[in-house]
Amino acid sequence: MNNHYALINKLKAKPGKRGEVIKLLLESGMSFQDNTSCIFFLVFEDAKDPNVIWVEDLWTSREDHATALARPELKPFIAKAITLLEGMPEQIEINLMGGKGL
Amino acid sequence: MNNHYALINKLKAKPGKRGEVIKLLLESGMSFQDNTSCIFFLVFEDAKDPNVIWVEDLWTSREDHATALARPELKPFIAKAITLLEGMPEQIEINLMGGKGL
Repeated sequence: MNNHYALINKLKAKPGKRGEVIKLLLESGMSFQDNTSCIFFLVFEDAKDPNVIWVEDLWTSREDHATALARPELKPFIAKAITLLEGMPEQIEINLMGGKGL
Repeated sequence: MNNHYALINKLKAKPGKRGEVIKLLLESGMSFQDNTSCIFFLVFEDAKDPNVIWVEDLWTSREDHATALARPELKPFIAKAITLLEGMPEQIEINLMGGKGL
């Protein structure tokens, strides 16, 4: 389970902007669909807090994640999303230990 | 994406007990391996905080999740794990909106 790079990302949208941020995340995530470095990239809304979004993602390595995020076609999505957020995303780095579903 | 039930769980182990809790989680998760209600159940250690564990899980429904957790063979794992934790697990309920990898 060591050859992975995993993150939990917590994003807080400005009031009323969560749906728009989710749309941007899903659109930008389309660029990962045929990228085999991306094992999963899943977007969730918080069931309790109407402004919070969670993204769970798992990559083959830290370097592959950095490369995927640096692709020029992502820049407009990231720039737009940042204007709709309160502050910067919180990024929790985690190490996969095992489980079911991969 | 509506027929799902998803959680992010944050567990804080007592100092020095994280490895033991992770082992219990992975062992107890074996009971989900042939349960089709469990889409994934993934156990991670926090890369920064040496006591924190994260569990990401996705189920076909809230009811299926409750049924899986109520199985009697899980009780000893849960009872043991609770003695190794600081406080109770924090459970964040989330709704899957889309992404890659399912």
